[in-house]
Amino acid sequence: MKYVFKNAMVLTMNNDELLESCDVLVENDQISAVGSLNNEQINNARVIDASGKLLMPGLINAHCHVPMTLLRNYADDLNLQTWLFDHIFPVEERLQGEDIYYGSLLGIMEMIASGTTCFIDMYDHMDDLARAVEESGIRAQLSRGMMNTGSGPDFSEDARLNESIDFYKKWNGAANGRITGAFAPHAIYTCSPAYIRTIVETAQKYDAPIHVHLDETLTEHEDCLKKYGKTPTKHLLDLGVFEQKTVAAHCVWITEDDARILADKKVTMAHNPSSNLKLASGIAPVPKALSMGVNVALGTDGASSNNNLNMFEEIHLAALIHKGTNRDPLLINAMESLKMATLNGATALGMDNMGVIKEGAKADVILIDMDKPHLMPIHNIVSALAYSVQASDVCLTMVDGVILYENGEFKTIDKEKVIHGIKKCYERIFQ
Amino acid sequence: MKYVFKNAMVLTMNNDELLESCDVLVENDQISAVGSLNNEQINNARVIDASGKLLMPGLINAHCHVPMTLLRNYADDLNLQTWLFDHIFPVEERLQGEDIYYGSLLGIMEMIASGTTCFIDMYDHMDDLARAVEESGIRAQLSRGMMNTGSGPDFSEDARLNESIDFYKKWNGAANGRITGAFAPHAIYTCSPAYIRTIVETAQKYDAPIHVHLDETLTEHEDCLKKYGKTPTKHLLDLGVFEQKTVAAHCVWITEDDARILADKKVTMAHNPSSNLKLASGIAPVPKALSMGVNVALGTDGASSNNNLNMFEEIHLAALIHKGTNRDPLLINAMESLKMATLNGATALGMDNMGVIKEGAKADVILIDMDKPHLMPIHNIVSALAYSVQASDVCLTMVDGVILYENGEFKTIDKEKVIHGIKKCYERIFQ
Repeated sequence: MKYVFKNAMVLTMNNDELLESCDVLVENDQISAVGSLNNEQINNARVIDASGKLLMPGLINAHCHVPMTLLRNYADDLNLQTWLFDHIFPVEERLQGEDIYYGSLLGIMEMIASGTTCFIDMYDHMDDLARAVEESGIRAQLSRGMMNTGSGPDFSEDARLNESIDFYKKWNGAANGRITGAFAPHAIYTCSPAYIRTIVETAQKYDAPIHVHLDETLTEHEDCLKKYGKTPTKHLLDLGVFEQKTVAAHCVWITEDDARILADKKVTMAHNPSSNLKLASGIAPVPKALSMGVNVALGTDGASSNNNLNMFEEIHLAALIHKGTNRDPLLINAMESLKMATLNGATALGMDNMGVIKEGAKADVILIDMDKPHLMPIHNIVSALAYSVQASDVCLTMVDGVILYENGEFKTIDKEKVIHGIKKCYERIFQ
Repeated sequence: MKYVFKNAMVLTMNNDELLESCDVLVENDQISAVGSLNNEQINNARVIDASGKLLMPGLINAHCHVPMTLLRNYADDLNLQTWLFDHIFPVEERLQGEDIYYGSLLGIMEMIASGTTCFIDMYDHMDDLARAVEESGIRAQLSRGMMNTGSGPDFSEDARLNESIDFYKKWNGAANGRITGAFAPHAIYTCSPAYIRTIVETAQKYDAPIHVHLDETLTEHEDCLKKYGKTPTKHLLDLGVFEQKTVAAHCVWITEDDARILADKKVTMAHNPSSNLKLASGIAPVPKALSMGVNVALGTDGASSNNNLNMFEEIHLAALIHKGTNRDPLLINAMESLKMATLNGATALGMDNMGVIKEGAKADVILIDMDKPHLMPIHNIVSALAYSVQASDVCLTMVDGVILYENGEFKTIDKEKVIHGIKKCYERIFQ
């Protein structure tokens, strides 16, 4: 299929470039031209009038547990331990494949309606999650969360490792490459060092990336110092995790030495401002990490600790909270925040043809309707995107050259079927 | 006019009451019945099907400078001094009545489309602002900001006092009581003690409330200690300000003693989380203030330091940032945050018949469409409102029994006229 976005403002995310009125040609899964197009190029294309609209790369959600959308608003305003052990874990034990499938589709609907075109996820029942990704048309890096310690549900390490391997072999590169796989040691407090080593060896065997939770809470940080005599980051470094391409979620309590390790090893730090605030974990030292050369991407975490999957909210928060808590209004400017949600997410995935509008890039793009009172007057597009745009201003979302969402309509997902499915799952789980 | 909201979920904000399916009758400017209605009550009413929707009191924005909407995204990511003295003040000097009128209408459009039914504002060219309020149908407490020191534009104290008095006499109680007046000493760093005393005496003469900025930055706090040997709160107390009903915006740096004064004197603290974060002023000690009995309401501040007038975003932020920065997930729960945006705002205005759905209350209500992927499943309405709802979920806004906004349409404001007006003003000011 061939599309032309006609007369769009374009934020390319390429050296802060903003094109005032420009045509963008999409052929198959790629952007094939940016600029003024001739008639031959436009021939047989669907022309989308983008005047008064802004085209930009789709947002990349660097840390999520999308099936948890089913648990949205289920347990809030609680202590972390109560939340996790009395509420989340017991419910998660009851989840079945259909719950994961419908919970994922619901979360994917929310994501594509709010401009997210790709997400990095770790959960359970991964075949069902992958099925939702495949059918919906969104892009995702997926991994089965692995644990072998702790008091949560089912900690059999071999079963989980085998599931992870099977999943990776089955799904990595699937759906025209939209789905990629990873291996996911859940966290240092749920995986023994030996288990983490085994996971790393497996990831090496398949040349696969790693997705891990890291240094989310002060308790995790202090327990690690007590137990292993080093920080969580140093612990993972010594276990060889960072030899694989790694996305480390949270990094709230990392030290300056830890940030140096993450920068040296090209580990992506997935910053989840809403979740870290809501669970009272703290605020990650993002300005410091960025200044030391760490690749910082943005994520929503799961909907039960957020309680939405709205990347524009995370962009907004990332641009606000570091200024306020460090009392420096120059920290994390609008463009830096947008980069975390686009380019840096692409870097996390090792894809230099994503997170940017240019010839040859993946056609993962969104269109934003700027004709809204809350966006007027348009003095500075970049500021408007970081501080004023609402998720609901997204009017078109395209992934891999396919339109998934346009003017409030889902093109690849049967909304009514998902709502019906969610209701059935919800009733079985909670009643 | 007579309306029935049929089969609505109703969050009354009356003792955390949530009614599952209920009818609400509005006659003229009041809610005249809540519950099941008989045919006689419904007779001649317009029936609004509210099934699957949530009815709640309209949001009250307790601190705003609505004409600054014209300066949205104009100067961001700057130091406070650079922002104010090099950018905001010079542009404000160029503003004329038409700029204030159209800037206000644009801001009011944004507010009513996002569920705000009342705001408390302090600015300049107040007749033009009041005209916008009158025509649009929104409710507001308005005051002319007064200064007599500093290096900003036009500091003539007599002229400003006289303007304030004229404005108060002309507009207090206007538009069926939708407009009320106040007196507004801008801040302790822009008003001499003698000037503040004069303003207080004037407010006393008219039995009028006061709107003031208080303890917004550490610089203000420390300069006050140096200059007057006391905190800004104690300084205003000693000048008699708090003998009048007062809304004090920001209160970021108040001490425990200050909070006690605010509680004793029934001063409302208007908390502006976005603005305080963006300008890097800090984070107000809201949990402490609430625990000491201070009435804390929520505000957006002006659009040039936010950059929007979205109260649901402030509710969301207020419920997140205190948890994160104090590392206590029990602070400011969902209901407390919603109360700050409704009931506590009504208390700030001395109106016990607002901010609540009950018989005899003002018909200032909003309807929220819950049929959105990002609100499903609905496990806990109160959590959903504080953590998941987007401003764009508001589908109806009613003030004083008049529908101002319904399903994306402005009923009292000519959108095209405002956009045209804004463009003309913008061109003159900036080009």
